[in-house]
Amino acid sequence: MELKSLIEPNNSKILLLVADGLGGIPHPEYGYKTELEAARTPNLDNLASKSALGLTIPVAQGITPGSGPAHLSLFGYDPQKYEIGRGVLEALGIGFHMTKRDVAARGNFATIQPDRTIIDRRAGRIPTEESRKIVEKLQEHIKEIDGVEIILKPGKEHRFVLVLRGDNLSDKISDTDPQHEGLKILDPSPLSKEAEFTAQVVKKFVDRAIEILKDEPKANGILLRGFAKVPDLEPFPEKYRLRALSIAAYPMYKGLTRLLGFDTPDAGDTFELEVEKLKELWHDYDFIYLHYKDTDKAGEDGDFEKKVHVIEKLDTFIPELLNLKPEVFIVTGDHSTPSLIGGHSWHPNPLLIYSEKAGIFNADAKFTERDCSRGYLGTINSIDLMPLLLAMSGRLKKFGA
Amino acid sequence: MELKSLIEPNNSKILLLVADGLGGIPHPEYGYKTELEAARTPNLDNLASKSALGLTIPVAQGITPGSGPAHLSLFGYDPQKYEIGRGVLEALGIGFHMTKRDVAARGNFATIQPDRTIIDRRAGRIPTEESRKIVEKLQEHIKEIDGVEIILKPGKEHRFVLVLRGDNLSDKISDTDPQHEGLKILDPSPLSKEAEFTAQVVKKFVDRAIEILKDEPKANGILLRGFAKVPDLEPFPEKYRLRALSIAAYPMYKGLTRLLGFDTPDAGDTFELEVEKLKELWHDYDFIYLHYKDTDKAGEDGDFEKKVHVIEKLDTFIPELLNLKPEVFIVTGDHSTPSLIGGHSWHPNPLLIYSEKAGIFNADAKFTERDCSRGYLGTINSIDLMPLLLAMSGRLKKFGA
Repeated sequence: MELKSLIEPNNSKILLLVADGLGGIPHPEYGYKTELEAARTPNLDNLASKSALGLTIPVAQGITPGSGPAHLSLFGYDPQKYEIGRGVLEALGIGFHMTKRDVAARGNFATIQPDRTIIDRRAGRIPTEESRKIVEKLQEHIKEIDGVEIILKPGKEHRFVLVLRGDNLSDKISDTDPQHEGLKILDPSPLSKEAEFTAQVVKKFVDRAIEILKDEPKANGILLRGFAKVPDLEPFPEKYRLRALSIAAYPMYKGLTRLLGFDTPDAGDTFELEVEKLKELWHDYDFIYLHYKDTDKAGEDGDFEKKVHVIEKLDTFIPELLNLKPEVFIVTGDHSTPSLIGGHSWHPNPLLIYSEKAGIFNADAKFTERDCSRGYLGTINSIDLMPLLLAMSGRLKKFGA
Repeated sequence: MELKSLIEPNNSKILLLVADGLGGIPHPEYGYKTELEAARTPNLDNLASKSALGLTIPVAQGITPGSGPAHLSLFGYDPQKYEIGRGVLEALGIGFHMTKRDVAARGNFATIQPDRTIIDRRAGRIPTEESRKIVEKLQEHIKEIDGVEIILKPGKEHRFVLVLRGDNLSDKISDTDPQHEGLKILDPSPLSKEAEFTAQVVKKFVDRAIEILKDEPKANGILLRGFAKVPDLEPFPEKYRLRALSIAAYPMYKGLTRLLGFDTPDAGDTFELEVEKLKELWHDYDFIYLHYKDTDKAGEDGDFEKKVHVIEKLDTFIPELLNLKPEVFIVTGDHSTPSLIGGHSWHPNPLLIYSEKAGIFNADAKFTERDCSRGYLGTINSIDLMPLLLAMSGRLKKFGA
């Protein structure tokens, strides 16, 4: 059975609010509550009392996903099949538009000896502004190698992105970064026959860059890793026959959804502006992805109170979103980021689906990991969410007779 | 691991009561209760308080199954692997015994112009009695084409079933029904090399039928779709080493279980008669499938109160069934048919398993979707039910040492 063969488009609207890193675990210093349990969230709790609840596993039991795999899975793409490589994520993160002809890699400026032995893998963490000038100098001198366009984009501090654009390029190339100081820069090796040409181009680029940078006091070397092409995915709007809008302030999420074929208008850099943009474009789309970043940031910082605070802030937007009257409204995370852990984790995401056809709800429920774990939807794989949303929005025909 | 290699037959009895379309969702006009919640079911509730509860997903999250896939899954056959085509279901539905040599198709009488342009795809919905006579006329004139036996059976109104019986027939043939009026009847095309002969036979049949019908005022054309053979399944009694009985009043369920190798005696056309037949044959079988249709019918009609009523009626039969002392007694649905939706849905089925070895039960539980969603068995795939039932009936050896 191909899901697509069962899809019948209609005009109902699906609103997917992803609070990044939303889920937490009990924190011993805060009465063994999770951030969601500690937060005062009257709007989310009221919604939860009328919604079907559950938990979602982003990739597999025990697996802590990065943002890339976690989001792919939410959108119904198997993250174990479609990998979004480091270089691509880095390019998306600085707002670069990747094409199918591109190979991207993460770059670091480094301090090296004349024999290319690495003294400092981060070139003394040179300031962003200084690094930007060095990137510009490199770009000025190197625009093309053997017919391949060379594109360089500055990142923060010692970081930059290298993009090779051309035909017949491959990302099956080993890193030039040996990951340890005191070792020499490695030559890029082709990891498959098709990658030989690309590896040659990268080698020439490294040689020319080191020549150009030879008089830099700190940034006289470069390290490259995570060569990657964009995965060959069926665009989301075709896969599900949905006009799809992505409202995200952060470049990485915007870039990721652009890769998937979402429309990704500039939505400003605060959640208030995101919601304004959402209202403006509401009527033109069937599926709207709305991203809230602050929960993840607070979790990553290990800041329980901050995470509680930003959850409470998110809560205040719920009535406005409900006023848009989506037929299916989902509140969930991409992955959990418990402040006790101070990073992404493998814990499943709390999941709330508000829809006339969502199923059984519990009038006593609140929007917490605990109540979600007892919910009617059970613990499901994130990748199974999209078929449920299509079904609840009335878009799936019967399978078989 | 092959399940079959672990099976050790014994004499314990498994009674599977399938209340078709049993599951529901909260209905806003009835205090947000489901039909099971609204129904007064003292016997089922008493049973639930001593049973292991859970939910089953017939095919996959979000997928609304037809009765064919839903039942295959209940009996442990992957419905995505074994498809029961439209033509076969239609033949089963009118009580026709399909053999492995048969290809069946759904037929419609249609009104056409001399150039075969379709004016009315349903020939004015001619009355069943009139249609039956036309089928008889066709059958009288066409008994065989190129060594293939032609069998025609009337259905309701403009519908009939065509069965080709012969060797080397294939069901890989395109529909002759273009699905829209104003278009011409299509020629049947072979969709694979092996289907060329069958497509020729079908084409000759269509030509001869149109010639015979040329003076009919309305039913002067025929449309064929859903060519299908019976899937090549291991019979249920061999697969599980169970003497299997099917008690179903409706032809389709009887036909489907006959395909699977169940004994399918005539059980009358009411549930009362079904239960009488069950008692009569109880001692001769290990596994008894008992089908209750009324829940699905009421759900399909969108009639909440009727569905409540027929659930209450079903409840009154529970003591009689328990009196037979099955070692494992299951009450569940094949798929859900919420009256709020008025059709099959993707919502999981409530599942009750009463057995000394079923596992943990909750003395406060009632037989509702809600309590099933919190049950010890969790939410499982319907296809995993059979191994559980074999285990609970003491038929499965240890796997490995």
